[in-house]
Amino acid sequence: MSSSLFANSAFSHSTTNNVSLQSKTPFRNFLTLSIKKHYYSYANTLCIRCSINNIQRPEYIPSKISDPKYVRIFDTTLRDGEQSPGATMSTKQKLEVARQLAKLGVDIIEAGFPASSDADFEAVKLIAEEIGNDEQGYLGHVPVICGLSRCNKRDIDKAWGAVKYAKKPRIHTFIATSEIHMKYKLKMSKDEVVEKATSMVAYARSLGCDDVEFSPEDAGRSDREFLYHILGEAIKAGATTLNIPDTVGYTVPSEFGQLIADIKANTPGIENVIISTHCQNDLGLSTANTLAGACAGARQLEVTINGIGERAGNASLEEVVMALKCRGEQVLGGLYTGINTQHIIPSSKMVEEYTGLQVQPHKAIVGANAFAHESGIHQDGMLKHKDTYEIVSPEDIGLRRSNEAGIVLGKLSGRHALKSKMLELGYDIDGKELEDFFWRFKSVAEKKKKVTDDDLIALMSDEVLQPQVVWRLGDVQITCGSLGLSTATVKLINTDGQEHIACSVGTGPVDAAYKAVDLIVKVPITLLEYSMNAVTEGIDAIASTKVSIRGEDEHTVMNGSTGQTLHRTFSGTGADMDVVMSSVRAYIGALNKMLSFEKLVSRYDKPEDSVVV
Amino acid sequence: MSSSLFANSAFSHSTTNNVSLQSKTPFRNFLTLSIKKHYYSYANTLCIRCSINNIQRPEYIPSKISDPKYVRIFDTTLRDGEQSPGATMSTKQKLEVARQLAKLGVDIIEAGFPASSDADFEAVKLIAEEIGNDEQGYLGHVPVICGLSRCNKRDIDKAWGAVKYAKKPRIHTFIATSEIHMKYKLKMSKDEVVEKATSMVAYARSLGCDDVEFSPEDAGRSDREFLYHILGEAIKAGATTLNIPDTVGYTVPSEFGQLIADIKANTPGIENVIISTHCQNDLGLSTANTLAGACAGARQLEVTINGIGERAGNASLEEVVMALKCRGEQVLGGLYTGINTQHIIPSSKMVEEYTGLQVQPHKAIVGANAFAHESGIHQDGMLKHKDTYEIVSPEDIGLRRSNEAGIVLGKLSGRHALKSKMLELGYDIDGKELEDFFWRFKSVAEKKKKVTDDDLIALMSDEVLQPQVVWRLGDVQITCGSLGLSTATVKLINTDGQEHIACSVGTGPVDAAYKAVDLIVKVPITLLEYSMNAVTEGIDAIASTKVSIRGEDEHTVMNGSTGQTLHRTFSGTGADMDVVMSSVRAYIGALNKMLSFEKLVSRYDKPEDSVVV
Repeated sequence: MSSSLFANSAFSHSTTNNVSLQSKTPFRNFLTLSIKKHYYSYANTLCIRCSINNIQRPEYIPSKISDPKYVRIFDTTLRDGEQSPGATMSTKQKLEVARQLAKLGVDIIEAGFPASSDADFEAVKLIAEEIGNDEQGYLGHVPVICGLSRCNKRDIDKAWGAVKYAKKPRIHTFIATSEIHMKYKLKMSKDEVVEKATSMVAYARSLGCDDVEFSPEDAGRSDREFLYHILGEAIKAGATTLNIPDTVGYTVPSEFGQLIADIKANTPGIENVIISTHCQNDLGLSTANTLAGACAGARQLEVTINGIGERAGNASLEEVVMALKCRGEQVLGGLYTGINTQHIIPSSKMVEEYTGLQVQPHKAIVGANAFAHESGIHQDGMLKHKDTYEIVSPEDIGLRRSNEAGIVLGKLSGRHALKSKMLELGYDIDGKELEDFFWRFKSVAEKKKKVTDDDLIALMSDEVLQPQVVWRLGDVQITCGSLGLSTATVKLINTDGQEHIACSVGTGPVDAAYKAVDLIVKVPITLLEYSMNAVTEGIDAIASTKVSIRGEDEHTVMNGSTGQTLHRTFSGTGADMDVVMSSVRAYIGALNKMLSFEKLVSRYDKPEDSVVV
Repeated sequence: MSSSLFANSAFSHSTTNNVSLQSKTPFRNFLTLSIKKHYYSYANTLCIRCSINNIQRPEYIPSKISDPKYVRIFDTTLRDGEQSPGATMSTKQKLEVARQLAKLGVDIIEAGFPASSDADFEAVKLIAEEIGNDEQGYLGHVPVICGLSRCNKRDIDKAWGAVKYAKKPRIHTFIATSEIHMKYKLKMSKDEVVEKATSMVAYARSLGCDDVEFSPEDAGRSDREFLYHILGEAIKAGATTLNIPDTVGYTVPSEFGQLIADIKANTPGIENVIISTHCQNDLGLSTANTLAGACAGARQLEVTINGIGERAGNASLEEVVMALKCRGEQVLGGLYTGINTQHIIPSSKMVEEYTGLQVQPHKAIVGANAFAHESGIHQDGMLKHKDTYEIVSPEDIGLRRSNEAGIVLGKLSGRHALKSKMLELGYDIDGKELEDFFWRFKSVAEKKKKVTDDDLIALMSDEVLQPQVVWRLGDVQITCGSLGLSTATVKLINTDGQEHIACSVGTGPVDAAYKAVDLIVKVPITLLEYSMNAVTEGIDAIASTKVSIRGEDEHTVMNGSTGQTLHRTFSGTGADMDVVMSSVRAYIGALNKMLSFEKLVSRYDKPEDSVVV
């Protein structure tokens, strides 16, 4: 491993840098000035930022960002992750996730693919405005806000239109470079692909975006010489980060490491930019491939919380970060990140809750069983020496056992205690939201002795972070069992306050209740997935239900990585101590998400050139 | 990578081999004859077996087992996997899993830890008798049946007592070799550990077991020179496979590969045995570490289905096998396994169902979304060229989409059609089991147009593969909803045919029903986990519920890898179109498992030296 990567570039232009030290936004000005002839390194420019900001945020890791061993974490949970089947999040939920990512200390947040739908555009814009300017994150850190775009002007315009409100905006543009993709998907020659890539990178820069990332899609299967060529041209055109995706999750660590090393050795101008990895997990090797990429010279790693993403997902943030934290010093060339690992568990839970993509119990780092060996009866020696089996301590990643949690709320707790607790959990609610949430909390606290942190997060997700309400749940009444026909009566209330009541029989209580809802809502729906989990131990636990549905109308959306058009599916979450109520709440949540998406999509113009890429 | 490993040893004793070619059980006799002075390679002995058996099973891969590029798959789902919290399987379920593993073509099945409980002993013995002698597996393949034991005589006696019924029995014994474990857990000096290990390996051989595997626990953190020494001594004592566990899931691929390479280079006598890997997944690197081990010379890989196991689990069979299948030729030194990959999905589903350990949707290879990109609307070019995104085809791993499934059963299907279908799915049922299952199937088929393969597997798990029945579910009647108190009435029937009825109120229908069950069963229980999933799409899907419970009595069990004593938890599965019925069935299943375990445990003598290891 060459640890001297970027070391020279980071310090070699110190005289030039003096110019920008006077500027309020040195990073942008500096690069804008030099766009025609020089392509200074990103590491270099960040180094300048940090030397300016060091006084205000003395502890923040970016003081070390010029350090050749500092590895940037680029989180794409909101873009690649959200495109998993059923993982659609509401705008409110996306904003909460982005806020959590800022607390986690993520360097770059890929907030979405603004050209894919108006809903995505609005979410990215909101995140750029709120999170991209908020210095209240981890030690005053303001993350870069990035928007994805294919290589065409319309996409790039949309991306810039959304991210430009952030203090540090970035456009990420991509085009496929493997033979198979160029031939069958793009139907373009190599020269045409190079021309498209470079002209669009330059176009992004010309809009005033000084931070442009370029990805050659399916790099893992691309011709090596062609890859060096197109990457070199992208650098000349103004790209500041080059991202190397293993799009089909095909490579093994030694191979992917070699790819990064070869790119580093053979691409003209590579010393002035950051190399990035983006590894899919199709063979279960994404974490190892990502680390191999870092050891070979990548200084940005693209990951998602819980490793979610299309197919088998991406490298997971928690695994990559904890591997670097636990073994970086010893066996990974001293590399390190700026992540505040104590926010890992809260982030993982939030993303699991909002996307409905469950984390398996044996998932590394964040699975329910990852630390479960501790619950056994330890022999004397074991208790005293946790190191015998433990390499990551639960505290390091923000895992608190229920008996260690601070205040546990009960039915006597008031609004103030609830508000403090929610703040501690990362949710800042006020006014009507707090009032509604308080009454919801009270109804649970009446039935359950202790209301735990996990209970509150589940209720929060059900009560506050729902999409725009089209239908609100009134009452439900059920009769069921093995002896007779299950019957449900449901009352729903629309936005005008009108009450609608319907009853239906079914094969079980949930089936009956869903059919009663269908009779009222009158929209054809296919139920794709239905799952339920108890939030905590015990018979009096809250049941959290997740459903995903698909409407009959084609809610299509473009897939960011592949340009494919996909059916959009909608997930909903419900939380209640009654499994049937929880199920009905989840169903109505998903319905509301679908119905409000329809409104947004109706305003959405199809891109002219959507066939090309 | 040295691909010549074992090549010499596999063929160098051809004259000696002639002796055993005459013998009915050449493998055992051959090794027994040579035990005092020579320690011939395992590869060698297997080579003899195969040359004898080639005529009967011409296609079976072990004809290539002397091939230095052949990698053995050692599955420990039934031992390491089953020790995950809540994953306890009934003996019937274990037998079904073992049968499935044989179909999959697994080389070695670690069937359990016979000394840990009488239940485990019985299960291992049954598997040894039935699966360990059954030539009806994949192309006539009979797997090795292995039992785990700590390094003490009692454990080894128990293990041999259970596995000796198999055609190819193996004892796997282990002792910790890292400083931290020897000091705090074993409280033994290095010399004492070496003496214990070698005397116990020799003891296992002295019982007539010619196939002995030895594992230095926590090898990843053990002193290197000490490791070479103890491994060399274990070989001298008669070990035929040396397994190198990364017990704390601590190493990175380059490091673990180097460990295997160093062991191969420095351990005296290593050329005569098989090196094995056993990688935990704490940092998400187990698959990569396992492959690195193989590339460095390991020719046995220890894995589990779905990667289950303690904490973050083990390397998963499907990932390791598919990586070798997809990339072995190109980048993994031409290594290959004898696994029939078309049984991967059925195996994964069976283990998920029986253990209650859900596979996350984005799990590599076997997750629900792993191939989900196919469901989108593909552009023309994409449809014609699946290779653009697909590296593993669904057919390769036995994944059939519902519209491709062969016969789909409906309400007019008879017993014969059901029996054929179940055989096709891998379940051979007859007599009363078939009759009971048929009526269960009919009750579902009345309500659901198409009964899919997944539905049948869920019903099978609920109806046929339950533990010994202590309580049987009669009827259930429920009233619930947001308007009143939820009330449940439950009728249970005990083994004497007596009916017990109780009613209870609760916070919801499941809570009320579980409380009514508790009133009848009168055993204090803590509900640890509760989850439910729809088996297929659609509102008329079967809901499959999994619960895990813990009794108030301490159902303790020894942890195979660590020697720790753990609370035993019990899982139950229920399947019904009514979510409440499904929930009650699961609860009663878990209760029955716990109550029948109590009976077995009462006969179990605690080991004398359980404190030592």
